[in-house]
Amino acid sequence: MQSVRLIRRAILTFALLSAALDTRAQQANLTLTAVPGIKVGHHTITERPTGCTVILVEAGATAGVDVRGAAPASAETDLLKPVNLVQQVYAISLSGGSAFGLDSRSGVMRYLDEKNIGFKAYGSINVPIVPAASLIDLNIGTNPRIRPTAECGYRAAQAASTAPVVEGNVGAGTGATVGKSAGSGRAMKAGIGSAAIRMPDGLIVAALVAVNAAGDVIDPATGKVIAGVRTADGRALADARALLTSGAIKQPARLGVVATNATLTKTQLTKVAEMAHDGFARAIFPSHTMGDGDTIFALATGAQSAPADVSRVGALAAQVVADAIVRAARQATSIPGYPAARDLK
Amino acid sequence: MQSVRLIRRAILTFALLSAALDTRAQQANLTLTAVPGIKVGHHTITERPTGCTVILVEAGATAGVDVRGAAPASAETDLLKPVNLVQQVYAISLSGGSAFGLDSRSGVMRYLDEKNIGFKAYGSINVPIVPAASLIDLNIGTNPRIRPTAECGYRAAQAASTAPVVEGNVGAGTGATVGKSAGSGRAMKAGIGSAAIRMPDGLIVAALVAVNAAGDVIDPATGKVIAGVRTADGRALADARALLTSGAIKQPARLGVVATNATLTKTQLTKVAEMAHDGFARAIFPSHTMGDGDTIFALATGAQSAPADVSRVGALAAQVVADAIVRAARQATSIPGYPAARDLK
Repeated sequence: MQSVRLIRRAILTFALLSAALDTRAQQANLTLTAVPGIKVGHHTITERPTGCTVILVEAGATAGVDVRGAAPASAETDLLKPVNLVQQVYAISLSGGSAFGLDSRSGVMRYLDEKNIGFKAYGSINVPIVPAASLIDLNIGTNPRIRPTAECGYRAAQAASTAPVVEGNVGAGTGATVGKSAGSGRAMKAGIGSAAIRMPDGLIVAALVAVNAAGDVIDPATGKVIAGVRTADGRALADARALLTSGAIKQPARLGVVATNATLTKTQLTKVAEMAHDGFARAIFPSHTMGDGDTIFALATGAQSAPADVSRVGALAAQVVADAIVRAARQATSIPGYPAARDLK
Repeated sequence: MQSVRLIRRAILTFALLSAALDTRAQQANLTLTAVPGIKVGHHTITERPTGCTVILVEAGATAGVDVRGAAPASAETDLLKPVNLVQQVYAISLSGGSAFGLDSRSGVMRYLDEKNIGFKAYGSINVPIVPAASLIDLNIGTNPRIRPTAECGYRAAQAASTAPVVEGNVGAGTGATVGKSAGSGRAMKAGIGSAAIRMPDGLIVAALVAVNAAGDVIDPATGKVIAGVRTADGRALADARALLTSGAIKQPARLGVVATNATLTKTQLTKVAEMAHDGFARAIFPSHTMGDGDTIFALATGAQSAPADVSRVGALAAQVVADAIVRAARQATSIPGYPAARDLK
């Protein structure tokens, strides 16, 4: 990870020299909002650890999706199929609360509708296009009936800004946990992570991931577990890769958004979303299980008019997804019963 | 159509003799609720022609889906992919209101959650599984901001019963129109239609369709248009098949549910949903256009334990879908600007 960070810093330095239009503050932003036109807002619910996160693209972005987990909670993903009509989305709504949490999407629609942002049906009737996905955190805290509502989505949209994404126990990642291979008693806390890469030619690829996983979070740069299933005494990391051969592996869901300033079609972004799942494969073990909801949305704002190389954007997307996952584990803080990576020192 | 009706009556007579457990009243029901365990409820909004329809399966049903229109508004369809975890759904939520109308699903979830009906996450936390689809009717009436809400879904669920399905201008079909190939000024009213076939061996296959289409509704038994784009003077049917070669064809969405008492897997029901789309192809011209949301959910209650023939159920499903579409056009009543089939005599 250290080497990756150094490379990213080198790229950043180069970008500072080459991209005169960006401000110094924008350059320092290595999260999803590094992509101009993307705003991110969280709303964190205090009654139980849950919440929602909204990625706003008020000018619209071309989008694709790859739902590869086997237990997804999702809405408006069908319209993202490359053959289908709608070409632009205006927000992505992520939340906790499992299928109930999809309600937060409704508040995001209301926020956009008040601003008349959306697809214009019959030329004038506004229909905000807001694909959504939710992760399951109903077992965290004591009252599973407290879930993100439409109000959560509306407030997250209100809070959205171009500032660097706040990470850790916020928004859709508030109740996110990892390392559930040996049951919740040996799990750990994770949350929201975000990362971005700026290429010398101005290409930016960024990711935001709400990390909720049966599996462990592994730093691909070192191969070491950062957060995951703990040993029976709860004090150390057990390593799910070793556990897999000796015992049962259980469930949950990651939700991710990758964004780029490149110009890509829906078909190309579907491929980018597929390739971005490699970041899950590298940074989470095991990935894509029957209990996971693993969903990645890919957005392209199209600010770079030069033709984009899909494979290059996809490879970078996988990298920022892995980086974001590692950050989600590192930035999380503990909650009762679920220590965070920073506590296991 | 007349011959189909006669055949259906013959089947019905046979079934009366062979299925001693069914009551006479149930036998007379040739709508979706002919399948034991299926309840249907509508809530019709009076402020603008729109509403929602809920298909309740409180004991759970295996389900599949085929979203074949290019402009769908949908939720929780990803979990219906055969490879994915969840095997049973507890309701299907259909509505008007385009993407906004998906909110009605939230009320259906609340209704089921109050009864503790749903998938049991972590063994005990209830998550009602309610896939949903919405059709666009925002251009009907004067205020597109009146849309089905969560309350609509809750009330439709409360109203659900095993009585024969009420057809015409109700529920999700309240604002449904057809024959928009030459613009809304020459369109006609359609709505909800439902049909069922009872086979001598006890197999029941039934459909409910909310018919909202760019295309014309054609009776496959006669090849004649029942409702669709009208001539310039508005008094007769123009026949979109003829118009296609001479002019532009425009947009919208059908939502359908087919149900059977057979025992089928998710994979088999996905195939049944695919085959059921042939009913759209036969009874609507043109079908599956870029502006259509054409979505069919297929449900199996599994009451018949004998192995089911997927092709047979699928072929029957296509038939009842076509029948339901014809009924949707025949049962609709006119609203200002949109005459119904019964008015064109």
